[in-house]
Amino acid sequence: MRARDLAEPFPTVGLDDQALDAARLLAEHRLPGVLVVDGPGVPRAVLPASQLVRLLVPEYLVEDPALAAVVDEAHADRLCEELTGVRVGECLPKDAPAPPVADAEDTAVEVAALMARTRSPLVAVVERPPDGRAAAGGRLLGVVTASNLLHRLLGAS
Amino acid sequence: MRARDLAEPFPTVGLDDQALDAARLLAEHRLPGVLVVDGPGVPRAVLPASQLVRLLVPEYLVEDPALAAVVDEAHADRLCEELTGVRVGECLPKDAPAPPVADAEDTAVEVAALMARTRSPLVAVVERPPDGRAAAGGRLLGVVTASNLLHRLLGAS
Repeated sequence: MRARDLAEPFPTVGLDDQALDAARLLAEHRLPGVLVVDGPGVPRAVLPASQLVRLLVPEYLVEDPALAAVVDEAHADRLCEELTGVRVGECLPKDAPAPPVADAEDTAVEVAALMARTRSPLVAVVERPPDGRAAAGGRLLGVVTASNLLHRLLGAS
Repeated sequence: MRARDLAEPFPTVGLDDQALDAARLLAEHRLPGVLVVDGPGVPRAVLPASQLVRLLVPEYLVEDPALAAVVDEAHADRLCEELTGVRVGECLPKDAPAPPVADAEDTAVEVAALMARTRSPLVAVVERPPDGRAAAGGRLLGVVTASNLLHRLLGAS
């Protein structure tokens, strides 16, 4: 079982895409996060849904629970307007790490060890050009999530 | 819109349940994590699928990528045996925080502010007994995930 067999399609957004579109994608697929890519095959970061929620809520409401309790419903309906015109690249935390990347030919054990080492909930799988694994770029085949990996490993036992 | 309307059912496991059963639950529902409860209404922690993957992979393979690359397929099939007999409570990281808890009557803005404040991907919703909100315990109604909250807030706008 190779990383290419474990990889599943996963929604991606580009750094210059609208944050509001990323939020719609997360909402529609009920995903905990979306993969941010820089070009077609370079995973750049994971944008968690919780990060977008943080951007929706004004700082004074985050800091003051009592105030948040008395905000009226009409205000809640307008929270998503905060994302209008904001690009995905601007939403990423400054220290957002690039997701770990496995080669298409890596084994399931290598993917599991990489996930364990990086404590990441997902690993991106990239097919590198045949002329050298160390070359930058490649083609993104999908991601292996921790739950998918458990599914495959449990199915095998 | 109140927290009780936002809450969705979410799989839970108890501290004394088998870790292997938790892994099967995560795998079956393709969930990034499962809610660990202590009794019927007390959310204790979130057990991420990636944490279970970490427990499957022996430390010497985590530390040595070159070694992980040469482990044979038969070994991969036996990784899940690592979880046999292990209980959920033993899998939680020592510093695993309890998930944030919202009251059933909290507003969507309060839930969003709580999620933003705690940087948590989910908020547990508990119905507290009518004789006092500060009382310990209550009934777990479900959870609000960040993506579900985005879905509801986007739908409202």
